[in-house]
This record gives sequence, structure tokens and C-alpha cells, in this order.
Amino acid sequence: MSSSYGQNLRFTIFGQSHSPAIGVTVEGLPPGERVDLEALAAFMARRAPGGKAYSTARRERDLPEILCGLKGGVTCGAPLSAIIRNTDTRSGDYAPLASTPRPGHADYTAAEKYGGAQDPAGGGHFSGRLTAPLCIVGGICLQLLRREGIEVMARILSIAGESDLSPFDRPVDPEGFPVLSAEAGERMQRAIAEAKAVGDSVGGIVECVVLGAPAGLGDPMFQGMENRLAAAVFAIPAVKGVEFGAGFAVSGMHGSENNDPFELREGRVVTRSNNCGGILGGITTGMPIVMRAAFKPTPSIAREQDTVDLETMQPARIQVGGRHDPCVVPRAVPCVEAAAAVAVYDALLEQKKYRR
Amino acid sequence: MSSSYGQNLRFTIFGQSHSPAIGVTVEGLPPGERVDLEALAAFMARRAPGGKAYSTARRERDLPEILCGLKGGVTCGAPLSAIIRNTDTRSGDYAPLASTPRPGHADYTAAEKYGGAQDPAGGGHFSGRLTAPLCIVGGICLQLLRREGIEVMARILSIAGESDLSPFDRPVDPEGFPVLSAEAGERMQRAIAEAKAVGDSVGGIVECVVLGAPAGLGDPMFQGMENRLAAAVFAIPAVKGVEFGAGFAVSGMHGSENNDPFELREGRVVTRSNNCGGILGGITTGMPIVMRAAFKPTPSIAREQDTVDLETMQPARIQVGGRHDPCVVPRAVPCVEAAAAVAVYDALLEQKKYRR
Amino acid sequence: MSSSYGQNLRFTIFGQSHSPAIGVTVEGLPPGERVDLEALAAFMARRAPGGKAYSTARRERDLPEILCGLKGGVTCGAPLSAIIRNTDTRSGDYAPLASTPRPGHADYTAAEKYGGAQDPAGGGHFSGRLTAPLCIVGGICLQLLRREGIEVMARILSIAGESDLSPFDRPVDPEGFPVLSAEAGERMQRAIAEAKAVGDSVGGIVECVVLGAPAGLGDPMFQGMENRLAAAVFAIPAVKGVEFGAGFAVSGMHGSENNDPFELREGRVVTRSNNCGGILGGITTGMPIVMRAAFKPTPSIAREQDTVDLETMQPARIQVGGRHDPCVVPRAVPCVEAAAAVAVYDALLEQKKYRR
Amino acid sequence: MSSSYGQNLRFTIFGQSHSPAIGVTVEGLPPGERVDLEALAAFMARRAPGGKAYSTARRERDLPEILCGLKGGVTCGAPLSAIIRNTDTRSGDYAPLASTPRPGHADYTAAEKYGGAQDPAGGGHFSGRLTAPLCIVGGICLQLLRREGIEVMARILSIAGESDLSPFDRPVDPEGFPVLSAEAGERMQRAIAEAKAVGDSVGGIVECVVLGAPAGLGDPMFQGMENRLAAAVFAIPAVKGVEFGAGFAVSGMHGSENNDPFELREGRVVTRSNNCGGILGGITTGMPIVMRAAFKPTPSIAREQDTVDLETMQPARIQVGGRHDPCVVPRAVPCVEAAAAVAVYDALLEQKKYRR
Repeated sequence: MSSSYGQNLRFTIFGQSHSPAIGVTVEGLPPGERVDLEALAAFMARRAPGGKAYSTARRERDLPEILCGLKGGVTCGAPLSAIIRNTDTRSGDYAPLASTPRPGHADYTAAEKYGGAQDPAGGGHFSGRLTAPLCIVGGICLQLLRREGIEVMARILSIAGESDLSPFDRPVDPEGFPVLSAEAGERMQRAIAEAKAVGDSVGGIVECVVLGAPAGLGDPMFQGMENRLAAAVFAIPAVKGVEFGAGFAVSGMHGSENNDPFELREGRVVTRSNNCGGILGGITTGMPIVMRAAFKPTPSIAREQDTVDLETMQPARIQVGGRHDPCVVPRAVPCVEAAAAVAVYDALLEQKKYRR
Repeated sequence: MSSSYGQNLRFTIFGQSHSPAIGVTVEGLPPGERVDLEALAAFMARRAPGGKAYSTARRERDLPEILCGLKGGVTCGAPLSAIIRNTDTRSGDYAPLASTPRPGHADYTAAEKYGGAQDPAGGGHFSGRLTAPLCIVGGICLQLLRREGIEVMARILSIAGESDLSPFDRPVDPEGFPVLSAEAGERMQRAIAEAKAVGDSVGGIVECVVLGAPAGLGDPMFQGMENRLAAAVFAIPAVKGVEFGAGFAVSGMHGSENNDPFELREGRVVTRSNNCGGILGGITTGMPIVMRAAFKPTPSIAREQDTVDLETMQPARIQVGGRHDPCVVPRAVPCVEAAAAVAVYDALLEQKKYRR
Repeated sequence: MSSSYGQNLRFTIFGQSHSPAIGVTVEGLPPGERVDLEALAAFMARRAPGGKAYSTARRERDLPEILCGLKGGVTCGAPLSAIIRNTDTRSGDYAPLASTPRPGHADYTAAEKYGGAQDPAGGGHFSGRLTAPLCIVGGICLQLLRREGIEVMARILSIAGESDLSPFDRPVDPEGFPVLSAEAGERMQRAIAEAKAVGDSVGGIVECVVLGAPAGLGDPMFQGMENRLAAAVFAIPAVKGVEFGAGFAVSGMHGSENNDPFELREGRVVTRSNNCGGILGGITTGMPIVMRAAFKPTPSIAREQDTVDLETMQPARIQVGGRHDPCVVPRAVPCVEAAAAVAVYDALLEQKKYRR
Repeated sequence: MSSSYGQNLRFTIFGQSHSPAIGVTVEGLPPGERVDLEALAAFMARRAPGGKAYSTARRERDLPEILCGLKGGVTCGAPLSAIIRNTDTRSGDYAPLASTPRPGHADYTAAEKYGGAQDPAGGGHFSGRLTAPLCIVGGICLQLLRREGIEVMARILSIAGESDLSPFDRPVDPEGFPVLSAEAGERMQRAIAEAKAVGDSVGGIVECVVLGAPAGLGDPMFQGMENRLAAAVFAIPAVKGVEFGAGFAVSGMHGSENNDPFELREGRVVTRSNNCGGILGGITTGMPIVMRAAFKPTPSIAREQDTVDLETMQPARIQVGGRHDPCVVPRAVPCVEAAAAVAVYDALLEQKKYRR
């Protein structure tokens, strides 16, 4: 089992790329909370494909249908289930893939895992399309967190080595390319276009901060905030690394440099720097939580690649058809927010149990 | 809750740095498996402090007492519980810390989380000492994995920027400094000694590979091998980043470069390169699993640091006493092996359910 | 959280009586298993209302739509989600109930639990209608169990004190009143009709046996077969007691009478009697598992009853409208089979992990 | 896995009858709560063997050693682990049992489950002795519940058909035979003595009430209070049935008789009767929770019994040695309280998450 997450807010994501529907079933949402469906749709539109030069031509209005869990738009304590119908699917595109696994995809590993019973069409349950239900539950959590004074925001930090080093002090424009520096965004989009032009793809890094989280969230050892966030973020296809605060750079630092001294600011205990990314011992400090996730270049590229024919057990060549983003990073930005939101909200519910 | 891990093999780590004992309670070990207590002791000795220039002077024979779960040295199907008594403790060293949190430690966050009820002595449940029970359960899993043809081995990849770039083709010497290149090891130890001489500390990177894991381990989305491994490894104090295969470097790569083409080698499907670190879609490819974890420099340094007195809510200065490693990385090497072992073994049990 | 069950096969039941749909999301089904949808429909028809003198007039074709989890009718390893649309709903019938809780229903307790945010229409998530998704997942498990040589069958043992004492040596007729003795069935149906005629309702006992379960299923203490079965069966509304084997009668027996001596039959170890109901120490003996569940009379009765107006906090009288079974026991028979099937199948998967 | 319980308060019971120690590891205890070790010892003394005509001669001071989880006698947020050393063990008594399973015990089923690897001495992990750790965690929960105004109390309702029908309006004398009517207690003890005199044993029923639980505890479907309580109580060896409120008697009642009308008492909503045992739809009504558990007669009897020699696969006779209670019911009374306490406390923590 695997497609479930959370201890207090617990959800299961279901569906395959070309099954009748995909969706999510959620338990543990507090009763009496209004779900703003328009805001949810706007959030999901940031992830949706179509209409942009840098993303796939597959167009779907990925609007969820809420099957249950609400009464008059307000959570009623019962599980919430929401689905998205798969309408614009062309399974034929994927037919030849069944026996010749695409490099960089889960075709081969799923075939080995499920003994050939897996659904290969469009990547099946391993499709990036399954991040849509993650955005449903994450989008709801973002609304609940905001009511507690907690904001989650992510941006592109780099694509193909082109970086946006602007201070992360405001959310990105939800309608535009999700960077803070327009100039950096242009460099990134140019790199994407260049890769696309030669039938290739590029990767990048998404940075996410959580503002307003109180000190004390997260739990020691296996449910620290780093563990919780990493366990959520690695659910997004293509993520190959996660780091917090100064991240991998801590490996080259001295303790006197890396330690964040405590000080008082307006009567509150804060840290002067935030190399720890707002997390010490797995528990939040009250400073911004800072996380970065590394995304690999889209494995579906137009160029012909080497593979193996699993039926004949002979070398083979494959040219991946279908429609694919030359870079998943822009669309991954709201997905990282969604993953962070479910992790933080689950930790928040955990902490509420022990309030006096 | 937090100090528990696993779905099929499930264990809880308990204890505080200065409580009567620390230990681990484990459910789900298969019955009929001999536990080699000498091999376990030898494994734990690699983590144990003492006797080395680069580690703390606190000396304890961290040998576990097995309270139950075995019959004649063989697992009997009942939960296994093992403890280590805390004998050489000097709580007095930590007395002043209760109100002046040490920078880089969990003192402040635990105080906020538990409303002042936490046990501050020696870091309490947040002490690096709690990696000893992780090594008990991990050491047992290493034995069980070996019986299935799976080997886990870790090494220091870098400390303070000094790298060991030798190919990772054999385990480190269990008695020596855990690197493959003696020359690189000397550079690293020199960096540690230099930091120690000036009352400072250094960080580093541990690399871990899992050899012999069959294709098909791990599950989609939230229980992929990356999620499982990250959730285990972030339990080790001081880890601030985790990456797999090419890791963060994928963010600057092209798809045509990063994709690992499939090919046949001696009749088996393999990948020509291993940028994916042996994991595609969260599921093992049958190639080596490759993981790296970044460790921050030991937060306990001899230099005086800025902090806050939580009782008076005034700025304060702190000089951390006690005995501390100027670099946790060498002792962290077996801990990373232990974390990887529990994650892989849990995934292996999951997969066994569905064998025909 | 609550509407989820299982460790290895794990599912969540969702929906309210009058929400757009109800359904179930299931993880852990083994890949490569054909789901016979016709057999599933036939099983669910045994639970469906309508057309029988003893059940509600609400008519719905409670056929599930499988949204995902299958490829060509065969499980593909991904979560399975199935829904049933709510079509024939008359929420108006329930409008006055919001403030005057029906005796014997969850109206009052849900209002207290969810602070008034609960969905009261038709009992919301507490409706007996939610046993339909239980029958989806249970019906699938029945098919999987049969492939392992395990049969689950339930029958009415008594209604309103009228008993069917026939030996339970064959399944009931799936189309008829679910008893073995036609004569006893007539007595029971007469008792139901008499209660209905005076605006009242009656309760009863369902007996369930599981044949062919191998010795060794179930786990010690909290996951014994009794714990697992009870935790599943009490999910069916109206169950107020569960017993195994000789059940409550053991309280009056002597050990020499209650103990089941071991003996050999055709080279197999069996017990001469089966007072333990096929379970010792929580683990199956290989003999039939025998369970009985007591159902209370339908709380919705036509007679006027005393209640309280929660808004005015004054005594009130209520006459329950809507359409209700005067006795839920006949339709509960397949629900008990479903509950037993999920419990046994989950235990079976648990045991498979440790096969050599 | 199996020896674990709970979602919010989560604990694992470990140990075998003759292993070095038995105990329990608990996560989720709220920080800052004093654990009264004397009160805990007094509670556990009610379960302890020895010194009474009706119980085993095995004498042990089953006082727990708290290994961690407390700081100065107060919970510190870290897991609590407590052990009891096994000192007075005579494994030799059980040697011949390894191949000739005792009727009514788990010897045979454990051998089948664990492929012969199980620890047979004294019943291993299946021993009634494992209820001592249940009483540790349950005894702590009883203290925490009392601070919330919730009292749990159990009594013997019947032994060998001899009943105590006194209204259950006060706790039993903790030092005496756990009944309310001294006369009924004498009848019961006489029945026990008579059975013992002829080398036999007797069963009985324990009744448990929970007073002061607020309305709203428990969750729909699989985590209703009945499911939670049953899942805990069936962990006590020898329990073969559990019922709530009117229990099995509801099967013969009419709805008009069984429904509990709501009414107002001192401004509070109550039910006039309590046939539902304080639980509707799985959720507490605020009235007393009423549960009864049926205990089978001690399977260890002095009389020779039929069994099978599993090595020779021949019929065999067995005379069970060791020291055994002719009736487990009196010592089971605090165990039922403990089981109820952990179930109610876990539900209480669940509910606290959603407080405004």
C-alpha cells in the first residue's frame, strides 16, 4: 500500500491516467469548515496543462466533482471524496509501450512489481496526472491553514541551471510563469524552448516556504517535519532530492557558521539566521519552513532512445509519442505547495490533540 | 506520535539520553530467523563513541539486552524488545541548558512543543544517542537482508568539503575511518581536528548503496522507496538533505543525458547508467539503490554562542559543556546503513504479500 | 478517522445517504486478479432494498461503477475506487429531524460530535446505506477468498426470538429469505409482519461461518481473529453484540466441557468439538470460524416517540417518516459476510508475508 | 503485527511468559501529566496472582520498572516504556507441551502460525501474564481519564451461572472479591472451589461501565466505540463474546421497547433508558457506556485430556502441569477496566483534535 498519506488527516489517491476517473478520498477534515470551490479551482488551474508554451497540449478542465463530505459546501465530518473524470485520453498512443519500457519512466519497474498486471496506458497510476488529486486535498488544506494564519508558497528556483535568486518574500503570480524575477523567468523559458526544439527536456528546483507555522509542529524521529515533508514531496513524480534550510550546503559549513543563534524580536524568540530551515530536532522553530525539491528533466523526450523488448528480450529502440511537457517544473510548483500543505496540516492536527 | 516506523516491520524507539534505559520494540520480524548477537555487537561498535580522536569521550558499551522476541537466539514471532542501560550519564552538565536553549539543538523547539515538560538532560529523546536503538533494529534487518542476497553499505563521501571520490565498490573497513581512500580519510580527519582545535565542528555527506535488491520493491506515491528511505534517514539527527542517484544535479541536466537507457546484460534487464539511483516511479529497478544524506556540523561547539534566557526573556550567552563529537559523520555511517536497512526490509515484506 | 479498515487490504468507505454518491476506495488488492462484476452484482442484490415484503420500498439499483484499479477487468495493483450514485433520495422527509433526534439513531450523537455540522439527511454517513460500499469490497474479497479455498456464509439464526436451529451445513438460497429451514423463515417473516402492522420493528441474530480457512490466520492480542472480525462487524449499524463459538454460553461452562480436544481426522489435526469457534489465542485452528452478531430492532418505527427539541431544549414528540425496514436482519446477512470476508482476507495477506 | 493498539495513544505489548521481561512501549501520552506510581501499583495488585484461594500460586511482585518517558514522575512527551522482569519461572513445567498442544490453548495455533518457531514455555506471548503490561498502560489511562472526569469500573456479573444482579452503582472493593453483593460473591467462590476440587475450571461474565464520558466520543463505522472497545477487550485471553447495553437481548426486542427516548434532566439531554449502552452510531451519548465480556473457563485443568502428538502424529493424552487459576474472571476484572480505559482514552484524544 502506498497511495495513502497522513496520520490525522488521512487520504488515498486513486486512479490511472486512462481509467474512467482519478480522485482522492480524505478522512479527518475538521467538521464545520467551508471549502471554497472557486479558490480550489483557481489553485488547480495553476497545475492544469494546456495553453502554455512550456506545457503539454493535453487539455482538460481538471475540476473536481465532490461526491460527499460536504453539506452545503461545509465539511460535515464524514470522509470527503472527489473525482476528476478522464475525458481526453488517447490510449492508442501508449500501446507499443507495454513491452518496451520508456527510459526514466516506471514502465519497467511497475511491470516487475505487478507481474505484468499493471495498467501501462499513460503511465497508469504512476502518471504525473495523479498530482491533480494531490492538489485537491492540498488545495483544501491550504484553505484550512490560511484560517490558522499559515501560508504556503512555492516558486521555481532554477531550471536547466538558470536561477532566480530573488528573495522569496511574496507569492508568485498565479497566472504567470511561477518565478519572482521576470528576467530569470525569461531565461528559464528560453532554456525550456531550446530543449524542446531539439526533442529534449530539462529539470529544475522548486523552493517552498511555509510562513506563520507556530513553533512546536512535528514530532521526534520518524515524524519530524523533515520526514513528513519529504514523505509527501517524494510522491510527486520526478523528485530526486529534498533539502531543508541550508540543505546540502551544511556539509561544507562549520558549526559556528551553521548554528542559528536565538534572539528576541518584538518579544518573540526567533533565530538570527535560518540555516535550519525552520526545523530543529524535527520540530518547527516558528521561523519560515524552507524546503527545496530537485526535479529531473521530463523522461518523455522526442528523441529515439535505447530500451529492451521485454517480450523478445532483445535490444530495441523507442520513440515516445503522446504529449509531454519539456519541463515539469512550472506545473510542479502548486504540487509542491499541495504536498507541503498536507504535511503541515497533518502535523498541526497532531499537535492539537495535546492542547490544554 | 513519531518514534515509530514501518508498515510490516514496525518498531518504536524509546528512551532519553539520561533515562534509565533506551531501546526499541519491534513487531513483524519473521519467525524462525537466527539473530547473530555477535555480528550485531560488531555492527553497533561502529556507531559507539569512544577511543577515537574524532568522537566524544563518553564511553559506553552500548550492547543491547534482548528482553524478549527470541527463543534460543531465534525469532519466535512475538515482538522483540531490546534495551541499553544508560550508565555513564552526568546530568549536571546539562542543568543550565533548561532555560537557555542551545543553538542548533532541539532544546527550544521541544520546550515549545511539550510546554516545558520535556526532558532536557542530554537532549532527552532528541539525543543522537537514540540512534543506538535504530542500529539494533537496523542491524537485525541487515542480517535478514543478507539472507535474501541484499547488502547495504555506506561511507563518508565528504567532510568539510574534503571528498572521497573513489568508486563505491566495496564496504569500508569496519574498524577504521569509514572511507575508501585512506588519503581522503586523512584530509577529512585533519579538517575535523582543525575545527576541534578552534572549538568548532564540521559537517559532511554520507553515501549509501543497497546492492542486490530485486526489481519491484517500493510502492507508488507515498510509499515509494525514496519516500520510505527519506522518512527513515531524516530520523537521524543533523540530516538536512537527502538525494537519490544523480540527486540535485538532475536539476541541471537534459532528459537525453539523465534518462538511463535499458539494456541486456547476461540476459538480465539493466540500465546502462544509474542516474535514477536504482528507483523509477518509487520502485526499484534491480540496479544499486544510491542515496546521499547531508549532515550539518555538530551544533554543540565549545565557542560561546548567543541565545535567549526563556525564563527572563533576556538575551544570554551560552557555552555548551558536555562531551561532543566535533563531527558526527563518521559515527553516522552505520546509522545510515541501519535506516536504509529498515526501509528496504519493510518494503521487501510488503512485496512478499503478493507473491504467487 | 474511522471509516477505514485493514492493515494489508486497506479501504475507506465514503458517502452520505443523500450525497451525490457513496463508495469505497481500496488499497492492497493483489494484482492480476479478475473481478467478476456479475457475481459482485448478484452478491450486492442480496443486500439491496426493494421488492420484498420485509424491506424498505426505496428502490435503487445499487450497482457500483468501478472508477479505477482494474485493467480489462483485472486488478492492476493501483487502488480500486467504486461508487454508487444516490438517485432516489427525498431529503425533505428528513428535514424536521435536524433538531429532534430520532431515538435509537445517531442523530443526537453526530450532532454532539460534529458540533452541528453533520449531514442529518437520511442519517448521513451513519445510514445503513453505507453497508453497500462494504458489500463492494467484501464481495471482491469473497471472490479472492474462494480462489484460496475459503468460503464465507451467513444466515439468520433468529428474529424476534424465532430461531432456525438447522445445522449450518450449506449456504442460504441467495434469492430467498436467508434461512435454512423454510418453516423457521415463515415464523420469522410472520413476526416481522406483525411488528410492521403495529408500527413497530424487531431484531435478530445473524450467524456466520468461514470454511476452509487454514490454521494460523490472525495474530496475538489486538489483531486476533476475534478482534479483527469484531472490529469489522460492529461497523454494521444496529450490531450490539458479537460472539465466537460457544460465545456467551462459555460463561456457564466447565473447562472439561468447553475445551475442544485435539484429534486426528484423515491425517489432519482437528478439534473434536468447536466451542472455540475455530479460534484459539486469536489464531485460526483450521476448523470453521463461527461468529454470531446480535442486531437491534430497526430504530425507525412508525409510532410516535419521545425526544427533545435541541433548538428549544424542550421535550418533543417525533414520528419518523421515510421508508424503513421493519427488520434489518435479512438484508444484514450479506453485510456480515462482507465484514467477515474483509477481516479474513486482511489476515490472510498478513500471513503471506512470512511464507518461506 | 498485532500486539499494538491505538491511533492516538499507541502502544505495543511485548514479552513471553518466560522471557527475561515483559512490558509495554507507549507513544502519545500527553506531556506534563503526573503518573502516580503508587496508584498504578495498587491497580496492578488487583490483577496480580497469589494469596487468594481462587488464583494461581505463582507469586510475583508485578511492579513495573519505568525505563523512560517520565521526567520527575511526569510525562515528558517521549515514548514511555515499562517492563516487568520474569523472575519466578519454571520452564521445565512446560517442556512436554511443545509437541502435545493443550486443548483450549494457543499451543497448536501458534505452532501452525510460526512454523514451530514459537516460544511454547508458559504459553509464550499468548500467556495471560501479558495482561500485566496491558494493566500498566491501562492503569495510566485510568489516571488520565479521571482527570477528565471519566471513571471506568468493572465487576463480575456471573461465574458458572451464579450472578450478581446488584445495580452497578459503585466500584468494587479493590481488596476483595470483585462483586457488589457479598452473598453472590460467596456463591461464585463456592462454584470455583467446587470446580477446582474436581480438577476442573469455570467461566463467567465481566461487566464494565464508563461514567462521565462526554457525548461525541467514537467515530463512525470501524472506529465506533463498540469497535474500539471490542478490539481492545478481545486482546484479553479467554474472551469469547462482547456486548453493549442490552446486548444479545436486543435480538428479541421490539423497536418501541429497545429505543431509548431522549429527555431532559437538569437541562441536559439524556436517554430515559440505556439499552444502547451509551453508544449510538458508534458515538457516545453521554450516558454510561455499558459493556459485558464473556470469559471461557480456564483451559488449563488438572484432568487428563485428549490431544495429538504433533511429532508422531498419534493420539495422545495430556495432563496440564504448572499453576493455574481455576477461574480467570476475578483477575480479569481490572484487565477489562484497562482495556476499556485505553479504548476510551484513545477516542478522547481523537476528539480533542477537532476542538475549536
